[in-house]
Amino acid sequence: MEKQNFSAEDCRFMRRAMELADRGKGFVNPNPLVGAVVVKEGRIIGEGWHEFYGGLHAERNAFKNCTEDTRGAALYVTLEPCCHYGKTPPCTDIVIEKGIARVVVGLTDPNPLVAGKGIEKLRNAGIEVVVGIEQELLREQNRIFLKYITTKQPWVALKTAMTLDGKIATAEGDSKWVTAEAARLRVHQMRSEYRGILVGAGTVRADDPLLNCRLEDKHRQPVRIVVCTKADIALDSQLVRTAREYPLIVAYTAAEEEVLEELRKAGVRTLLCARKEGKVALKDMLNKLGGLGIDSVLLEGGGELNYTFLQENLVDEVFAFIAPKLIGGREAKTPVEGKGFGRMSDAVVLQDLQAEKIGMDFLIRGKVKK
Amino acid sequence: MEKQNFSAEDCRFMRRAMELADRGKGFVNPNPLVGAVVVKEGRIIGEGWHEFYGGLHAERNAFKNCTEDTRGAALYVTLEPCCHYGKTPPCTDIVIEKGIARVVVGLTDPNPLVAGKGIEKLRNAGIEVVVGIEQELLREQNRIFLKYITTKQPWVALKTAMTLDGKIATAEGDSKWVTAEAARLRVHQMRSEYRGILVGAGTVRADDPLLNCRLEDKHRQPVRIVVCTKADIALDSQLVRTAREYPLIVAYTAAEEEVLEELRKAGVRTLLCARKEGKVALKDMLNKLGGLGIDSVLLEGGGELNYTFLQENLVDEVFAFIAPKLIGGREAKTPVEGKGFGRMSDAVVLQDLQAEKIGMDFLIRGKVKK
Repeated sequence: MEKQNFSAEDCRFMRRAMELADRGKGFVNPNPLVGAVVVKEGRIIGEGWHEFYGGLHAERNAFKNCTEDTRGAALYVTLEPCCHYGKTPPCTDIVIEKGIARVVVGLTDPNPLVAGKGIEKLRNAGIEVVVGIEQELLREQNRIFLKYITTKQPWVALKTAMTLDGKIATAEGDSKWVTAEAARLRVHQMRSEYRGILVGAGTVRADDPLLNCRLEDKHRQPVRIVVCTKADIALDSQLVRTAREYPLIVAYTAAEEEVLEELRKAGVRTLLCARKEGKVALKDMLNKLGGLGIDSVLLEGGGELNYTFLQENLVDEVFAFIAPKLIGGREAKTPVEGKGFGRMSDAVVLQDLQAEKIGMDFLIRGKVKK
Repeated sequence: MEKQNFSAEDCRFMRRAMELADRGKGFVNPNPLVGAVVVKEGRIIGEGWHEFYGGLHAERNAFKNCTEDTRGAALYVTLEPCCHYGKTPPCTDIVIEKGIARVVVGLTDPNPLVAGKGIEKLRNAGIEVVVGIEQELLREQNRIFLKYITTKQPWVALKTAMTLDGKIATAEGDSKWVTAEAARLRVHQMRSEYRGILVGAGTVRADDPLLNCRLEDKHRQPVRIVVCTKADIALDSQLVRTAREYPLIVAYTAAEEEVLEELRKAGVRTLLCARKEGKVALKDMLNKLGGLGIDSVLLEGGGELNYTFLQENLVDEVFAFIAPKLIGGREAKTPVEGKGFGRMSDAVVLQDLQAEKIGMDFLIRGKVKK
């Protein structure tokens, strides 16, 4: 990667800003993760990050925390400072006001209507601005935001959990548990980082899941979304019974009004979607979820829904948990079913692969090669 | 692990002997892997290993390669020197003859009829002998030999290759290729290290495999073994057609004499086994293969045979190759099928887990918890 005129020190401070940005995970969506560091004579004098949706931007938090006068200091910020009025006034104003001499920017604002204007405003005020440091890492960190801001569709991460012989349950349907506690805890961590958790109606019938995030720390609860052609999800399912506690959306395409009315009475949000081959058109559903501010969904199956998502090329990333056990069973369910692709060469291929041991289990993850 | 009176130097030389032993992999079965190092005043003056079945023992090769007089030197050897006449004279004799002052032994001979006698003979000759250094690592290295010498049954390693959604082929049966070249090369490497490659008749019908080891380096070819109740494997299959070039055993339990005669004429060895539920009794088959000097088999499926092996608790180790791709298909074959275990808690669980990236693919391996 080209380094331009970035010093090792620049990289170090930008990575620190990136670390800070990460603390907003699960709290700022659909806003980006942003971190900022104020540096004077090689020392950090202030740090901040965008902490929660609607809260102060990273730059303002960093200035707020400064322990010294900021005049002549450098500001490191992972994303181009905004120059428009949103929920807060433009950050460019405060940067100028604080007498900052040099601004090091990671990513330019990907919104084509804004991109570069914040930087221009700073330069016009006589501030030295350098752009593009640690771009690759920052794009990875904000991949959800970068997709959402440009397409208005949520980032879709498919999460599966299977045995080492490819089963998500035994032939008799026992699925408790495939993975051990550490991996299941990680799934709850992931649920807190996505705005939506998505399952099919078959999974609701088979497992009656709650799909909330059961972590002790404070976090946001994801919106639970069920894809259900006729919206005929059981009123006594755990999902419906908890709909006033944790948001629940039922995405449907051909439901009777009485059925919808019952769901609404229970506190469920019903979402009418276009039809495709008699079922909910997934792409239309994602557009509608995006319109509701849902920038990311964690797709948790089952196999039929997972396959349709893959077949329609709607999955961005895959997290496959693998338990080191073998269960057998030609009738046992697998993570992706449906008709399946005909040729091995038609497979959906992952790239940017990472493998990790989580307790006794393994996690293999990667992004879908588009 | 208890270190007794072993110094860091002792460990270092034993590990070197272990490295040398490893070079015999695939050449010495059903003998153990053995390496030896002769050390004088802290310097290695000779190295050797058991190179091939029927060849010199490691100690003799090490002495043969010595660059200095061995009197007063120390000998490091991964396995207790033999004290009986086999294909070669007892190694204890040459150790005494060479004036060795100290012998450091890794493992004692696991054969209960011999264990300790070699060490005793050396001590009686006034040589200092210490035993048990790096035992855990050495047991792991010689796990095949240690099982075979004590049970006369081959070590069974199950090898599978699947997509990240648990499929070994598409729903249409296309299996070329699940994994990429580097992983397939590794399988050929593995085939050279096992004395037998084992598949079911269904795999022969579906894939018509050759099952030889296609490496450029010199190596031994494994014995190909097909489990086939009626011995009705096609005479024009690749396996039968190459039976004079690479050994082929057909294990059967209820075959017509004419069928067997045709196979024998083609150069196939037929192996009558006991019957269990109308099929070849696998445990009896393994005993018979052990009787033929086959100390290890690589089990390559298909799913029905793999399941029966697991169900009967006959698998020692699992090598699961995983390709980072998704293929879907509720009808697609998976690595282990059969009826399957009913409860997730009945699963065959692996331990001593290792994960490795091989080219674009992953290998997860572990030993079956007994």
